[in-house]
This record gives sequence, C-alpha cells and structure tokens, in this order.
Amino acid sequence: RELTVWAVGTDKMAERGEVIEEEASEPLPAESLCFSRRGTEQSSHRLLAYSDAVISIVATVMILPVSHTKIRADQELEESLQQLLTTKIAVYIMTFLIVTVAWASHIRLFQVIERIDDVLALLNLACMMLITFLPYTFSLMASFPDDTLGILSFCVCAIIIGLIQAVIVIYGFHRPSLLNAHICASEEQISYKYQILKMILQAPALFLLAGILSFIYCPMAYAVLALVIFLPYISQCAQWCRNKIKGPKELRRVPFYTFHPNEPLSKERVEAFSDGVFAIVATLLILDICEDNVPDHKEVVEKFNGKLIEALSEYGPEFLAYFGSFVTVGLLWFVHHSLFLYITKSTRLMGLLNTISLAFIGGLPLAFQLTHEFASNSRNELEAIQISCVIIFLASLFQFSIWAVALYNEKETLHHHVWYGGKEHAFMFAKLSLYPSVAFVTFCLTYILSKLSTEIFHMMQIIVPFAFVLLRIIVQIVLAILTWLFSRLKPRTSILKEDDSIFVSENTS
Amino acid sequence: RELTVWAVGTDKMAERGEVIEEEASEPLPAESLCFSRRGTEQSSHRLLAYSDAVISIVATVMILPVSHTKIRADQELEESLQQLLTTKIAVYIMTFLIVTVAWASHIRLFQVIERIDDVLALLNLACMMLITFLPYTFSLMASFPDDTLGILSFCVCAIIIGLIQAVIVIYGFHRPSLLNAHICASEEQISYKYQILKMILQAPALFLLAGILSFIYCPMAYAVLALVIFLPYISQCAQWCRNKIKGPKELRRVPFYTFHPNEPLSKERVEAFSDGVFAIVATLLILDICEDNVPDHKEVVEKFNGKLIEALSEYGPEFLAYFGSFVTVGLLWFVHHSLFLYITKSTRLMGLLNTISLAFIGGLPLAFQLTHEFASNSRNELEAIQISCVIIFLASLFQFSIWAVALYNEKETLHHHVWYGGKEHAFMFAKLSLYPSVAFVTFCLTYILSKLSTEIFHMMQIIVPFAFVLLRIIVQIVLAILTWLFSRLKPRTSILKEDDSIFVSENTS
Repeated sequence: RELTVWAVGTDKMAERGEVIEEEASEPLPAESLCFSRRGTEQSSHRLLAYSDAVISIVATVMILPVSHTKIRADQELEESLQQLLTTKIAVYIMTFLIVTVAWASHIRLFQVIERIDDVLALLNLACMMLITFLPYTFSLMASFPDDTLGILSFCVCAIIIGLIQAVIVIYGFHRPSLLNAHICASEEQISYKYQILKMILQAPALFLLAGILSFIYCPMAYAVLALVIFLPYISQCAQWCRNKIKGPKELRRVPFYTFHPNEPLSKERVEAFSDGVFAIVATLLILDICEDNVPDHKEVVEKFNGKLIEALSEYGPEFLAYFGSFVTVGLLWFVHHSLFLYITKSTRLMGLLNTISLAFIGGLPLAFQLTHEFASNSRNELEAIQISCVIIFLASLFQFSIWAVALYNEKETLHHHVWYGGKEHAFMFAKLSLYPSVAFVTFCLTYILSKLSTEIFHMMQIIVPFAFVLLRIIVQIVLAILTWLFSRLKPRTSILKEDDSIFVSENTS
Repeated sequence: RELTVWAVGTDKMAERGEVIEEEASEPLPAESLCFSRRGTEQSSHRLLAYSDAVISIVATVMILPVSHTKIRADQELEESLQQLLTTKIAVYIMTFLIVTVAWASHIRLFQVIERIDDVLALLNLACMMLITFLPYTFSLMASFPDDTLGILSFCVCAIIIGLIQAVIVIYGFHRPSLLNAHICASEEQISYKYQILKMILQAPALFLLAGILSFIYCPMAYAVLALVIFLPYISQCAQWCRNKIKGPKELRRVPFYTFHPNEPLSKERVEAFSDGVFAIVATLLILDICEDNVPDHKEVVEKFNGKLIEALSEYGPEFLAYFGSFVTVGLLWFVHHSLFLYITKSTRLMGLLNTISLAFIGGLPLAFQLTHEFASNSRNELEAIQISCVIIFLASLFQFSIWAVALYNEKETLHHHVWYGGKEHAFMFAKLSLYPSVAFVTFCLTYILSKLSTEIFHMMQIIVPFAFVLLRIIVQIVLAILTWLFSRLKPRTSILKEDDSIFVSENTS
C-alpha cells in the first residue's frame, strides 16, 4: 500500500506520504528547535536576513546616479544642485520611500508567516527579484513622466508583488503549522485569512486602476500611485479623526497586520535593514575608489616620471573623503546600535523615523564626494561642506527623534536603564545629541570663519570619534558639576542618585 | 565622599564609580539577557552582523573593475580574457582571499571575546575601516608590482589591523566579563592571554619583515606575504606530518583559537557573510542598469522618434542578463540556505570550501555581462556562455563539496535527517547536484548545438527554478521507481524506509 502512495506523483499525495513518514519517526531532540514541527519546515530567520540585505542595498542604489553626476568646476554648485534636485535626488528619495514601503509590507507578511518551507522560500525570491527592479521602473517614470511605459511597468511589478504575497498568505493558511503561533491557535483563522488577503489585495487593485488610468490621463495615474503609498497614513489619520468625533470604537483587528502607529515592527528586521544600509553606504566610496583611482601605468611614467607616490597624492582628497565618510557612517551606526540595544519594542512610527534617518545617511556619499571635488576656498567648496553638515545634522536628528518617540511611551518600548532617571539615560542622551550639535556648530562656524571651513570640517571628522571615546567621562564630569551646583542651591540631604535623575528629566523635557 | 569619586575624571575612577552604582541597583529581570552582567556590556551579535555585511561587500568589490572592462566586439574574447586574467581577475581572487583571511581572524577574535562594550565597538569600527582599504592597496600592488609603495601600504594596514586586534584582546582580558564563558571561568586565563596574543602578533611581525624587505628586494617581500596568508595551512600540514611520523602529541590548545581544520567556525557568521556576498552579487547588475540603462531624453526624441519602448528594446539583453543573474544567484543562495539549515557545526575546512564557492559566485556578474555583450551567434558569445557555465558549475560544485566534507563526519556536523539514510538525505543530494549537472549538460550542449547556444542558455535559466519546485516530487518518483526495482531484484520483506536508505547510501558513496 505504501508503494502506491510513493508512486503517485501529485503534490497532495506526496504530502500525505510525508505525513505518514513523519508519524513513524522518532521524537526529535529538544535542541533542534528549527525542526520542531515537521522536517520540511524551517525557521525563517535567514531568509529574512537575506531579504533585508537585498532590499537595503536596492534602496540605497539610486544615490549612485546622483553622486556620479559630474559638476564642472566653473559651474555654480547651487544652480547645478537645483537641476539635480528636480530629477535625480527626487528619484533617490522616492525610490527609498517606495522600497521601504515594500519592505514594511514584507515585514508584516512574515510576522503572520513565521516558518517557511521550500515553496515559500522560492516565492519570496521571486518577490525579491521584482522589488529590486522597482528602482529602475521608477527612474524611467522620472525621466519620461509623459510616457505611459514607466508607470505601466511600475504598476505591473507592483501588482505581481501583491499577487505573490497573496499566494504566500493562501499557502501559509493552507499549512497552518507555518503560521504565527497566535493565529495558528486562534479559532478565527478563516476570518483572519480573508482580512489579511483583503488588505494585501487592496494595493494591487489600486495599482491596476493606476495602470488603466495611465492610458487615459497620466496625472491621475500618478495621483492614484501617491494614494497607494500614503494610504496607510491617510487611513490611520481618518480613523483617528473618526475616533475623536464618534468616540473610540473597538475593532477586532488581525494581530500583526494593522497600520496602527503603535503596531510592533520586528525589531530584529529593522536592525538588519539598517545594518544593510549603513554597510553599503560605508563601502560605496571604496567601490568608486577601487575602480577609478588606481593610476594608469603609462600615465605614471609619462606625467610623474614613474613616481607612484606623486600620482597618488593627486587623489589625496578622495582618500580623505573616504575615511571621513567611513568614520561618520561608522559612528552613526554606533549611535544607532547603542540606541537599539535599549529598545525593547519598535513601533511603526519609530520605523518610519528610522527610515527617514537612513535616507539621509544614504545621501552621505554624495555629500562627501562634493566636498573633495572643488578647488579649496572656492565658494562651491564652502557650500558642499554646508550641505554635508545639513545632511549629517538631519540624519542624526531623526535618530534622536526615534529616542524621543520611544521615551514618550517608555514603559513599553525602552529598557528600564534608559528611562527618565535610569542610570544610562544621561549617557544615551549625550550620545544621541553629539552629532546634531557638532554638525550644527560646524555649520555655523563655516559662516563665521569662511576661510577656514575645510580645516574646520576635517577637524570635526577627526574630533568626533575621540569625543565618543571620552563621552562617558565627560558626561560624568558634567553630572558631577551639576549635582554639586544643585546641592549648593538646595541644601537637602538627598542621595546622589535621586538628584541625578531629577535634573536629567528636567534637562530633556 | 561619593561626590569626589564622581568628580575625578580618570578612567579608573569612573569605572569604580560605575561599579558602586551597579551594586546599589536592583537585580535585573531575567529576560534581558544582553544586560545580564553589567549595564555597559552588550551582546556582540549586531556588531558582528554589521562587520560581516561590510566585509562581504568589500570582498566582492574587486569584481567591478573586471566586469566594467569594455571588450570591443571585434576583439577575440579569449585573447582579451587572457589579458584580464593576468591582472584584474587575479586581483579579484587574491583580494577575496585576503579579505576572507582577515574575516576568519575576526571570527576567531570574537569567539574569544563574546560580549562587547562601547570601546570595543569603536575599536572594531577602526579595524573595519582598515580592512575595507585592503582591496585598494592590493590593486596598487598588482598595477605597480615593482614599486614599494603598494606593498608598503598593504603591510602598514595589515600591521595596524593586527595591533588593534591585540589591543582588543588585552582589553578583553582586562575586563574578563567580556570573555567567552569557558575562558572566563578557566584558571589558566593568563596563559591563554599570552598564547592568543602570540598568535595574533605573529602576522604583524611577519608583515613588518615584509615591509622592511620591500626596500631591499621586492620579490622576497612578496614571498613573505604569501607565507603569512598560507601560514595556517602550512603549519597545519607540518603538524599533521609530524603527528604521522612521531605519533599524535597531545597539545594543550586554547579553545576557539587554533588553526585546526575541525575547529568550529561560528556557523551564524559564515551564514551572515555568505548572505552578504549573495546579496551584493544579486544587486550588482541592477546597480549598473539603474545607472547606465535609463535612456537619455534627447536621444529618445532624436533616434527613436520619441518612442520609449523602442529605445528600451535596445537594452533587452541587459534586462535578460539581470534576471538570469538574479535567478541564478537567488537559487544558489537557496541551495546554500537549505544545506546550512541541516549543518549543526561548521568547521574551518567547510568554511574554506564555502569561501571558494563564494569567490566563484562573485564572478557571476562578469559572466552574465559577457553573455549579452556580443552579437548573437558570434564565436565570442559562445565562449561567454561557456565561461558562465564553468563558473556556475564550479560554484555549485564547491557547495556540493561542503556537503561531502560534512557527510564525512556526519554525527558531529549534520542534523540526523540528512545522514546517510535520513529521510531528507536523497532530497538534499538532488538539490545540491541539480546546478552542477545542469551547468555541465548545458556546457556540453553548446559544443554539440553551437547554433542554438543562446537559446539553450536561456532555457537553462528558466527551467532551473521550476526544477527546484518540482524537485521533491521528482525525487520521490525516482525513489519509488528505484525501490520498486530493488524489491523485484531482492524479494525480501524489508520495509520501505530501510530499503530507501540502502540505495541512497550506495548512490552517493
């Protein structure tokens, strides 16, 4: 009888054969958690890490056309930047946003589906392939806004992505052991399934509409596109307003699949995605340097009498820009890492702020490339340095705002060490505010001491790492001085720790 | 009294102040494992993930100068490849090797140091910065082999990396709570420390020698460099020979810090590094496409009468190459992922094989770029396709060899499901042998049906994903047929599962 089961090659039968086999096998050892339910199922951890790596690289890709735009030395930087802004920088920012929207929906999907098998892994790879193609269709849209082809190809990709996600959900509910334990155990599995499917298929339906509209009247198609991207935020606002007017209404929501700003967003994946962006940004300049800045053998012999060191000294500014960029990106990663160590739950809002911060960090290679491209003490150089300061300031400010948002709901989102008055609170505050304040000061100094601007900028790049090393000592000195001042003003016999927490909360609020 | 402790700003004092504070605080909740010992210590997991991402991108970087080399259509591919081979491809492979050697030493280091604090995180970032600079110094060496500057800058980087690692070890032993639990609890901590330091400082000492030699006689300096890279393998061979001659000698070795081929190599990090390489390889082509293949607005109007679709159809082969490359890389990742799911412990030897496989995978973008660069049915195109097949064949063959090596010691390294006769064994075997066999068959077919070669190649790219989906069914049909044949030959009453395992082991051995 068993032989016939094996021989019939349909999927259903094979599955049954497998189940029979599984029942016969011995109980599994406890340590192999990833094989806990059935042999063909796998933990999704590595699949998600790989997806995060691919998506983060693709999100940052569109900075390359921006940073590779050559600006002639006699051209005014402001003017050429305005030209750039209208197309390439806009394309970069929009691509980043769209790819992160796709990524967020990917997170939500795999919060429902917690375990994978081979079929899901392959479906996910197909999904990845289409997501990596989105930047290209988007840059077509930006270069030829009047042509339907760009928007059409974008819509086709987006629709297929949506359909694949729907197939993944259907497949997941077909094999409930793949699902999130909470949903798997729930009695309302079927209702959840349709709710999730409805939410997933909303986007493809709207994209289909946009695709059809693109044949009739392009601007309307773009309007629909914008609607899809901002839909979660709009619907959230609408619901908030409705709740304010009619009073809160208790909705039975699917767990893990809402657009609520307090909805948890897998912290592990936010970290993995951020790591990917930081890593590719840190290495983008070395990619260029390895390709362009190895001098030609002939050139060295002819122009520099065969002296390699003279040929290389021409590239000096490039190397400086590389090290500056790596140090800045590395330290911003360090701040991010320190912050997320103490975050116990990351919400959608924090994820959004993190994304914006990362988008600015993706702009850093451009900023550093600009700083070394112009003759020293020209007006362009000054502007390039100011742009760098602004980008660093904004990137670090949004990191700070993640912390601010987390503090707003600290009991849920933060480790108790960094609560108001926690023992690491002041130190974390100092860490997060170091870059914004240094960038701000440097920016102001470039206006006052316009002749010394390059020197100031390099000074900043060199000083900051040491500042981080000394930060703990500095914070403790400042705390001690403040405590001492307080104790002079109010001669009470409170112990040090309480005092400490009082002024810290005053300091930040 | 406490105030004076706070006010004195030296490191030692600050530390003492911290310890005092820690003792006063309440016991920590059990779930926050990463804060289990002291507030300033952190799990190293994310630091290592970020390092792996950066190192894997840098390792694959040097394929870019290779794949961006323009080959004129009238040039013979074979000839120009030979020119490339002598410099650029050699640079790529050597860079990959050197960076992975640096990565392996990084793994060993952080198997000793299991927890980090801020100082270690910053030291590690400095180390990363120098590692990312290695490819550039190496390409200088390759372009100007007679100039001392290349080898000198390489040696300086390598020496500084070694010194930073030594500082990390000294710092780690200074604060034993950061160490691996086994070493931390051991009584021979001091002896371990000196053993590890000796091993770490071996390499910088040799690099110093190479640097000095480079002033005297360059070739000798290169010989010393080669010695450093292959030192672990040489010493291992020497030891193996000694053991064979004199009989095994029991050495008291430092745990986690040997060069033994069976030494465990953190499986998590091997996976993370591989993911990084796969991700950057999969996206390298989209980087190029996004930058080069968005047609110019003017050109479209002038050359194609404003028809965008005609302009894009010129880029058809590029898109095909992109999708082909993504699918192949994605599926090779899938195979790798399936294999490592069942690996319970990865050894140094498996790590080496994995590295070689990844080096070939890094060559895939080159291969696919070549396939679309030549006119159809030219001799060059045929050769380009053959090169692609060879690269795919070798990459997947080395994946297979990881599995073969793991099987050799299956009780230690594999999950019992994939042991000889395990229920997933045949399936895993089929998965791993699919790509080598398909690439081999395609390669042979291009010789027989030289006219149809492009079609065959694209057929292969399209068929393989479906083959993976159907693989489980195919394997079960083949198993059923074989079982049936066996049962006809030997009419014994053995049950299916035993039979199954017998022929499987005969099949693979």
